[in-house]
Amino acid sequence: MRGLLVGRFQPFHLGHLAIVREVRAARPDDELILGVGSAQASYTWKNPFTSGERLEMIHRALGGARVERVLALPIPDIDRHALWVRYVESLLPRFERIYTNNPLTRRLFEDAGYAVESPKLVERAKFEGEVVRARLASGAGWEPLVPEPVAAYLRELGAPARLGILRDRSPTAEPGA
Amino acid sequence: MRGLLVGRFQPFHLGHLAIVREVRAARPDDELILGVGSAQASYTWKNPFTSGERLEMIHRALGGARVERVLALPIPDIDRHALWVRYVESLLPRFERIYTNNPLTRRLFEDAGYAVESPKLVERAKFEGEVVRARLASGAGWEPLVPEPVAAYLRELGAPARLGILRDRSPTAEPGA
Amino acid sequence: MRGLLVGRFQPFHLGHLAIVREVRAARPDDELILGVGSAQASYTWKNPFTSGERLEMIHRALGGARVERVLALPIPDIDRHALWVRYVESLLPRFERIYTNNPLTRRLFEDAGYAVESPKLVERAKFEGEVVRARLASGAGWEPLVPEPVAAYLRELGAPARLGILRDRSPTAEPGA
Amino acid sequence: MRGLLVGRFQPFHLGHLAIVREVRAARPDDELILGVGSAQASYTWKNPFTSGERLEMIHRALGGARVERVLALPIPDIDRHALWVRYVESLLPRFERIYTNNPLTRRLFEDAGYAVESPKLVERAKFEGEVVRARLASGAGWEPLVPEPVAAYLRELGAPARLGILRDRSPTAEPGA
Amino acid sequence: MRGLLVGRFQPFHLGHLAIVREVRAARPDDELILGVGSAQASYTWKNPFTSGERLEMIHRALGGARVERVLALPIPDIDRHALWVRYVESLLPRFERIYTNNPLTRRLFEDAGYAVESPKLVERAKFEGEVVRARLASGAGWEPLVPEPVAAYLRELGAPARLGILRDRSPTAEPGA
Amino acid sequence: MRGLLVGRFQPFHLGHLAIVREVRAARPDDELILGVGSAQASYTWKNPFTSGERLEMIHRALGGARVERVLALPIPDIDRHALWVRYVESLLPRFERIYTNNPLTRRLFEDAGYAVESPKLVERAKFEGEVVRARLASGAGWEPLVPEPVAAYLRELGAPARLGILRDRSPTAEPGA
Repeated sequence: MRGLLVGRFQPFHLGHLAIVREVRAARPDDELILGVGSAQASYTWKNPFTSGERLEMIHRALGGARVERVLALPIPDIDRHALWVRYVESLLPRFERIYTNNPLTRRLFEDAGYAVESPKLVERAKFEGEVVRARLASGAGWEPLVPEPVAAYLRELGAPARLGILRDRSPTAEPGA
Repeated sequence: MRGLLVGRFQPFHLGHLAIVREVRAARPDDELILGVGSAQASYTWKNPFTSGERLEMIHRALGGARVERVLALPIPDIDRHALWVRYVESLLPRFERIYTNNPLTRRLFEDAGYAVESPKLVERAKFEGEVVRARLASGAGWEPLVPEPVAAYLRELGAPARLGILRDRSPTAEPGA
Repeated sequence: MRGLLVGRFQPFHLGHLAIVREVRAARPDDELILGVGSAQASYTWKNPFTSGERLEMIHRALGGARVERVLALPIPDIDRHALWVRYVESLLPRFERIYTNNPLTRRLFEDAGYAVESPKLVERAKFEGEVVRARLASGAGWEPLVPEPVAAYLRELGAPARLGILRDRSPTAEPGA
Repeated sequence: MRGLLVGRFQPFHLGHLAIVREVRAARPDDELILGVGSAQASYTWKNPFTSGERLEMIHRALGGARVERVLALPIPDIDRHALWVRYVESLLPRFERIYTNNPLTRRLFEDAGYAVESPKLVERAKFEGEVVRARLASGAGWEPLVPEPVAAYLRELGAPARLGILRDRSPTAEPGA
Repeated sequence: MRGLLVGRFQPFHLGHLAIVREVRAARPDDELILGVGSAQASYTWKNPFTSGERLEMIHRALGGARVERVLALPIPDIDRHALWVRYVESLLPRFERIYTNNPLTRRLFEDAGYAVESPKLVERAKFEGEVVRARLASGAGWEPLVPEPVAAYLRELGAPARLGILRDRSPTAEPGA
Repeated sequence: MRGLLVGRFQPFHLGHLAIVREVRAARPDDELILGVGSAQASYTWKNPFTSGERLEMIHRALGGARVERVLALPIPDIDRHALWVRYVESLLPRFERIYTNNPLTRRLFEDAGYAVESPKLVERAKFEGEVVRARLASGAGWEPLVPEPVAAYLRELGAPARLGILRDRSPTAEPGA
């Protein structure tokens, strides 16, 4: 069987890695799809990294942690929530189980007949995308929050400078605007 | 002749019904189109119900109230306001009169040469979509604000639980995000 | 209960009217939705008339024929067939039965669990949109193919001249191209 | 006053230049807008050159021919013909006169109340985009069909090789498909 | 050579004119492109004027100020920042230099290998689009902030009334909503 | 290093498998990305299978053939060829080499500075998507053209019946049209 865990992974941090380990350990014979949401977005405060950069982070983090049987796949937004479950089904290979702590995601998948489970969150206040991005923007204290190969990759990308620029912008502004 | 009244009807409440009655009574020989705006949206705080659910509410409410000669038709957003009047003209059957209390809608239709009238609003503070949604989310006090057949339908849909989930989300977040 | 019949109605002709009568007569207590497909399209050879013009034709034809309990509603294309049934469900009020002679429409709705019926077609070769449009473009012989109120409306729109222009254009060309 | 002439200019050839000269000579005090249609398209057989490349061609050709008071402006497709005139009005600075030999463009602008004129075409069979593209693809005989500065620019772009590749592809295929 | 300066020009004010003069004076042999960003937007608080209205303002302002060798060209949003530079390159004629004070625009163009310069801003607090729009909405004190031909054009458009309507609306609301 | 091979894989057949084996054998230390093009499309003659179904085929085929270090990732169309390479870069994790026999894909990636190689095609006339789809539609002779696990999966999907329906439809028709 396959499970599906959807997130934006902006960036992929230790909280994500803990959940992936937990889910993989609970069902070692299952495969796990990591659906990379809002895949079309990048260079905004909420979504600073491209789909490709996020897939790269996940590959490096899981390779470093020797986690196997995980498929990371991009999910661009469709902007019509009533169609979202059917859209995800059409985009991804078959999955049977959903892992989420998001109430709307739970509701939509349950309404479509899926079994939904809630992975245990570790230190949610600390391991949250918004927190990691704020520390990246300030340039300090972010490295302990992400897997080491992700930290190296974020330095390579110049992520602190990028986040510093994005923090001060309106979330929907185009470049040049 | 036909008139046009555009709203989002999230949900269709007694304020809407009062306006429809008033407009129908003032010109009993006219037909009235209810244009269901933002028809593509659903499962967000501003637009919790699908186009289809909103059309269903309107049919039940008007059937229950024995209001006739009303056509409810969906209008998906086009996101280019300068084209909006022309877009509505191309989407809907012919109409000659506009009923609206929205100053931008009034301005755009007047610039295109239409006669625009303002229906009298009854107890605006009470009969407003935002208020009805907030009460639905809290689970109490919403039923007196909507026509009885709409209340029954909202219960059938599990609307209070849906609104409770949507209240706590960022307005533009995708599921899973 | 409600049934759904999807078509493009370019234009609404006597073959459509015969099907509507047949479906209404078979189940007089049901309502029937006419879903006006490709509602966003107009001024092309395949889709010469706007959604609004097609709704107007249907209202006049059904009014003239005293057919009741029919709702005509626009369905803009979504261009993702795997999501189409879910999309139509979200756009329209509840329906339980599908009437179609289109094998893909049948297949998609059956896969989603709907009962699908095939209305009997009368003189298909004659009563077909393409044939009616070709006669409109040639300016002769089209009037016996459409209900009288539709013929009057098509004359009012200058439909023969419009079709004459559109016949000679590439189906996807923009104006000016 | 300003006039508007819409085309795709794939590429800008001597037939286009002759029309621009004629229109400018007939009304030397008017400005003329060249609306570059299907501006979003490129690297297809019908639209091999980007909007930017086409604007560059026009600037070089008009500079070389010392034609003044001409503004070349991109018009991306909107894919809803009923809105097209209103869309062009919202995109471009004010214009009062239309120059076109395209019957649909004429019809849409006339319906919106514009005066439309037909420029005289010189040797239409020869000076047509499709012909120029076919010769470019074959690598021979295209240079006499375009203004000299455009020929130089097309050589700089490697246009014959690009057209050779595009000729053999389905018009809607994505790269990689 | 050509330079590119991107802005939304909502509206085109004296701060913009000062920058254009400065850039033109520093390199009198260069052409300058003014890229009109968010060109698809209009009738919102952030983007009250259509692309066409903004191009008209720029033409009148530069004509009045006798500034030459400037091309104003619309840039509709593409909503994918990672593609933005490539998109602008495909839309506009060739440019080699970028003028911007926007850090994200600078970053994206520098990452693509462009030379980027920062024009000196005069009295930024005063000459800013938001400030000019707020004064327009209040109906007073806006005229000294824009070039005289722009002031005349804004009066012609009824800009103060338009801005008064738009100030009170949610930034993403459709008309009728 | 990573290589990229883009195709639509409608369906994934033995010709595709041969190329994947060849590329993997030539550079056993590289990873290979299979980019699944036109990922948004399905239920058309050219694109009968959803992105998810195609990913499922690839996983089963490569699992059955014990091919490792291959990532299959969806690439929805962007419909702007000039942006396509940049778009693919933003969507996928880093890649350095391109494998393609498509001249436009080659040209676009070479213009962007990539090394491009042409894999050897085996029996191209036989192992081509169009041929496999035609045999599927006729119901006979298709099984020897696909890997055995793909054949089993196609039977499970009812692929011959689906292809039979799609063969007779216009390529761009919506369901119901």
